[in-house]
Amino acid sequence: MLKSIQESPLYRIANPRSIAFFGASNNIFAMGTNLLISLKALGFDGSIYPVHPEEDHVQGLKAYRSVLDLPVAADMAVVALPARIVSQILDECGKKGIKHAIVVSGGFKEVGGQGIELEKELVEIANKYRIRLLGPNCIGVANPPHKLNTTLLPYQGPPGFIGMASQSGSFITQMFHYLSGFGLGFSTAFSVGNEANIDIIDCIEYLGACPFTKVIALYIEGIRRGRVFVETARIIVPHKPIVAFYAGGSETGKRAGFSHTGALAGPDPLYEGMFRQSGVIRARSVTELFDFCWVLGTQPRPKGRRVAIQTHSGGPGAEAADACGRVGFDLPALSLETLDKLAPFVPKTSRLNNPVDLTFIKNHLDYFSNIPRILMEESNIDILLIYVLMLQQAVKRALEAMGVPKEQEAEKMSDLIDAQCQSIFRLFETHDKPLVGYTYQSFHEELIQGLLDRGVPVFPGPERAAHALAALAEYAKLHEGTKSNNESESLKIEAPQPHE
Amino acid sequence: MLKSIQESPLYRIANPRSIAFFGASNNIFAMGTNLLISLKALGFDGSIYPVHPEEDHVQGLKAYRSVLDLPVAADMAVVALPARIVSQILDECGKKGIKHAIVVSGGFKEVGGQGIELEKELVEIANKYRIRLLGPNCIGVANPPHKLNTTLLPYQGPPGFIGMASQSGSFITQMFHYLSGFGLGFSTAFSVGNEANIDIIDCIEYLGACPFTKVIALYIEGIRRGRVFVETARIIVPHKPIVAFYAGGSETGKRAGFSHTGALAGPDPLYEGMFRQSGVIRARSVTELFDFCWVLGTQPRPKGRRVAIQTHSGGPGAEAADACGRVGFDLPALSLETLDKLAPFVPKTSRLNNPVDLTFIKNHLDYFSNIPRILMEESNIDILLIYVLMLQQAVKRALEAMGVPKEQEAEKMSDLIDAQCQSIFRLFETHDKPLVGYTYQSFHEELIQGLLDRGVPVFPGPERAAHALAALAEYAKLHEGTKSNNESESLKIEAPQPHE
Repeated sequence: MLKSIQESPLYRIANPRSIAFFGASNNIFAMGTNLLISLKALGFDGSIYPVHPEEDHVQGLKAYRSVLDLPVAADMAVVALPARIVSQILDECGKKGIKHAIVVSGGFKEVGGQGIELEKELVEIANKYRIRLLGPNCIGVANPPHKLNTTLLPYQGPPGFIGMASQSGSFITQMFHYLSGFGLGFSTAFSVGNEANIDIIDCIEYLGACPFTKVIALYIEGIRRGRVFVETARIIVPHKPIVAFYAGGSETGKRAGFSHTGALAGPDPLYEGMFRQSGVIRARSVTELFDFCWVLGTQPRPKGRRVAIQTHSGGPGAEAADACGRVGFDLPALSLETLDKLAPFVPKTSRLNNPVDLTFIKNHLDYFSNIPRILMEESNIDILLIYVLMLQQAVKRALEAMGVPKEQEAEKMSDLIDAQCQSIFRLFETHDKPLVGYTYQSFHEELIQGLLDRGVPVFPGPERAAHALAALAEYAKLHEGTKSNNESESLKIEAPQPHE
Repeated sequence: MLKSIQESPLYRIANPRSIAFFGASNNIFAMGTNLLISLKALGFDGSIYPVHPEEDHVQGLKAYRSVLDLPVAADMAVVALPARIVSQILDECGKKGIKHAIVVSGGFKEVGGQGIELEKELVEIANKYRIRLLGPNCIGVANPPHKLNTTLLPYQGPPGFIGMASQSGSFITQMFHYLSGFGLGFSTAFSVGNEANIDIIDCIEYLGACPFTKVIALYIEGIRRGRVFVETARIIVPHKPIVAFYAGGSETGKRAGFSHTGALAGPDPLYEGMFRQSGVIRARSVTELFDFCWVLGTQPRPKGRRVAIQTHSGGPGAEAADACGRVGFDLPALSLETLDKLAPFVPKTSRLNNPVDLTFIKNHLDYFSNIPRILMEESNIDILLIYVLMLQQAVKRALEAMGVPKEQEAEKMSDLIDAQCQSIFRLFETHDKPLVGYTYQSFHEELIQGLLDRGVPVFPGPERAAHALAALAEYAKLHEGTKSNNESESLKIEAPQPHE
C-alpha cells in the first residue's frame, strides 16, 4: 500500500504542474484538439506545451516542434497521435526526462494483429525510461480539484466525492453531465484503457489515498491481477467503500468487453467471489454504480435494517414498502411514544402506521420539518425513506392561510422551499441516521434541487432508493466498528497546487 | 365480456355529458374545490352542476341547494363530502334518477370500525337505485380525450395510449407530470379506491374496449375476484397487452397495501400464478410498469430475441450487452452482407461486431440515419437498441465542414436534429422491428425530446431498456399469430362527445 498519495505512479498524472501535449492543433476535427479544449475550459493553471511539427501556436499557446525543445521536462505528456508514431514520441519524451504519460491513441492491443506488436514496443520504451503510463486507448484523467481534465468533453459542475477508475472512457467523460444533474461529481476519475503499464489497481490505490474521494467507483470489463485486487481493496474498504460494476457478468457482456479493451473477462462467479472476498459492493448497472456511490458518500452508516417510510399517500408508500421488503429491510411499527408525538399533526381519526401515511396532514409544512424529525428520533428506526412531493397547490394554500399577499407568493414560495430543504438537511447533524428521498416529480423542481444541493439523495422511484440503502446497510454491517476516512480526517485539505 | 364500451358501468363515469358536483366550494382548502379546479382546467365541455347548501355560485358556476333542484338527472355525481353524509347524498341522487357516481370521500372500510358500516350502507343505497359507483376512497377518473379529469391535480400534456386502473389514486394523479416528461399520457385512468361497487376488473373490461387505449396498466394491492380477473384478462391480452405491478409482492408491501385500501393481498406465488395464467405481464415497480407500457404501446412485436446494439463507444455497448444477456437476449454476429453495407461509414481498420461500436464513425450524421437503417435490414436481428448520444461538438464540426456560417449554427443544428429524429422515426414504417434508445444525457436535450415526441422510447440506462424489450418479446411470443387491436382497428375514432 501507498504510504502517501505522492508515492503513486498516478500522482503526477493526476496532479501535473506542466503538460507536454501531442496531437492538439488548430484543426477542430482532431481528437487531440478537443482534449486540449477540455483542459483549457476547466482553467488548468499549470503550463501547457503543445508539440506540433508545423504550427508556431496551437489554440493560442506557443507550440514546440519537438519535445526536446521544451524549456523543462514536463511532469506529464498527453499523447493523441496515430498509434504507429506513439513509440517514437514516447522515446523522445524519455530522452527529455519526462516520467509520466497518458496515451490516448487507440489502435493497439484492442485491434489485435499489428496493434499487439505496437503495444509491446510502447511498454518496452516506457520501461527503458521508467516512464509510468496510463493507456493506451484511454480518455485520460479528470481531476477537477486540480482543474485537470484531459478527456473529450468539458467537465460540468463542481468537483464531487466520487473517485472512479474505469475500463471505459465513456463512463468518465460522458458521465460529467449525468452526475451534475444529481448534484454529484468526480473527485478524480481515471480512464485506464488497455492498462499496458498502469492498471486499475494502481488507480484504486491512488483513490484510496485521495483526500477528496469519499467512495470509489469501478467500471470493470476484466481484472488481470485478481489476487492483488483483493488484497488492495480489502485494505481500503473498511475506511472507504468501493462499488464495482462488472460488465462481463453475462455471456454477451463478456464478449462485448473483450472486443472493447481486450480485457479477459472471467466467469461471473469468479468476480462475485473476488468482490465478496474484498468487501467490494457489486452494482448491477452503471446507474446503480452511481446510486450506491451517492448514498455511501453522503449518508452515515445505519445501525441496522429497520426503515421508516414517510409518504404523502398510500400507493407510493405501499410501493416503497414492497421495494424495502425485497431488499430485506424491516418496517417496524412505530413506538407509542412516536405515535404520541405525531398525533398533533394529523386528524384524530388518522391511524398512523409504517409506512407513515400523511394524506391527511394538517399543515403541509410539517412534512419536511416536524414529521421527519420525530421519525429520526424513533429508536426502533435506523433509516428514513421519504416520498418527496410538494403539491404547489397545497403550499399556496398554506401561504394564503399565513396571510401572504399574492404578489409576494413566488418569493415566499422560494423561501419556504429553501427552509424545508434546510430543515431536512439539519436532521443529519442532529441524528446519525441515513435519510433518502424518492419521487416521481421532475428533478428540475426547486424542492428537489434544493435537497440535492444539500447532499440529500433523491431517487426516481423507491426501488432505486431501496437498493442503494441496502448497499449502505451491507457496507455498514461488514465494517461495523471501523472508522471511515470521512470521519477521521478533514476533507478540507488544500488541493495540490500546480506549482507546489 | 362487453359487446361495446357503452355497456360498461364505467362508460358514463368516464364520458359523462353532465356532472352533479358535491363538495366543491369557493374555499380553496376543500378537497372538492381542487377536484373541480382540475375538471375545469382541462376544459370539460359538458354541464357541471355544483350542489352546495349555502352558495349561489361555486367557482363561477350556478350552484344548487339540492340535487333535486337540478334541471336534469346528471349523467354522474362526484361526491367529495364527509363520509357520514355520503349515503344520504347518494340517496337523493338516486331519487333524482342519477345512475352513476364517483365517491371520492375517505373514511369508509379502509379506516375500519364505523367506516365498515358506512360502506355497507352506501352499497345498499347504490343497489336500491341501481347506481353504479366508483370508490369510495378514490381519486376518480382522468379521461383526457373526453376532457374529463376529476382528480386532485391538473392533467398535463396531450392524451396518451396508456389505460390505467389503479388501487392507488396517487399513481393516477401524481403520474401526469411524470408521464408527460417521456411524451406519454393516459387514454383513460381509473382510481378504484375501496371497490365497493365497481372493481378493478370492470375497469379492465372498459379499457379493453376503449379505442384510445393501446396497453393497460394495473396497480394492484389485492384482487378479490381472482377467477374473473384471469378470465377477463385472458380475453383481452391477445389483442391488447396488460401490465401489472403488485405492491403486495413482499411481506412489508402486503401489510402496507392492507392499511391503505383494506385490500387483502395474497401470497406472492398466488399472484404470480394469476398473472401467468392470464398472460398479464408483471412489472416489479411502478417505473417498470410504465416502461413496459411505453414499449408495448409504441413498438411492433419482435419476431425473436436477437438484438443488435448500436453504440458510440465501447463501455455503454458492453453495459447494454450485459443487460441484454441478463434478460436472455442473443446478440448474434452481423452477416457479411451487413458488414459490407456498414464498411463505407467507418475507417478500414475498424472491426465491427455486435455491439456495433461506432467510436470511429466517419460522419456523425450517419449515426441516426444510414447505420440504423442498415441494422434494421439485417435478417439476423429482431430488435435494435441504440445508445443515444449526440456530441454537440461533433455536430458543430460537421456543420462547419458543410460550410455553415456561425450565426446560422443554432438554427441548422435544430433542423439537423429534427432530421435525425425523423430519420429514426421513418425506420418504423419501413421495417417491422422494435427500436429503442438508451442514454445518460438529459431528457431536456433537443435530440431526446425529438425522439420522444415521435414515440421512440429512450430509457435512462440500458437495463431499463432491456427489461422493457424483454417484456415486449415475452408478449410477442405468448401471442404469436394473434392480431393486436392497434393493427386491426383505426385509432382515429372520434372521441365520445359530451352531448352526443
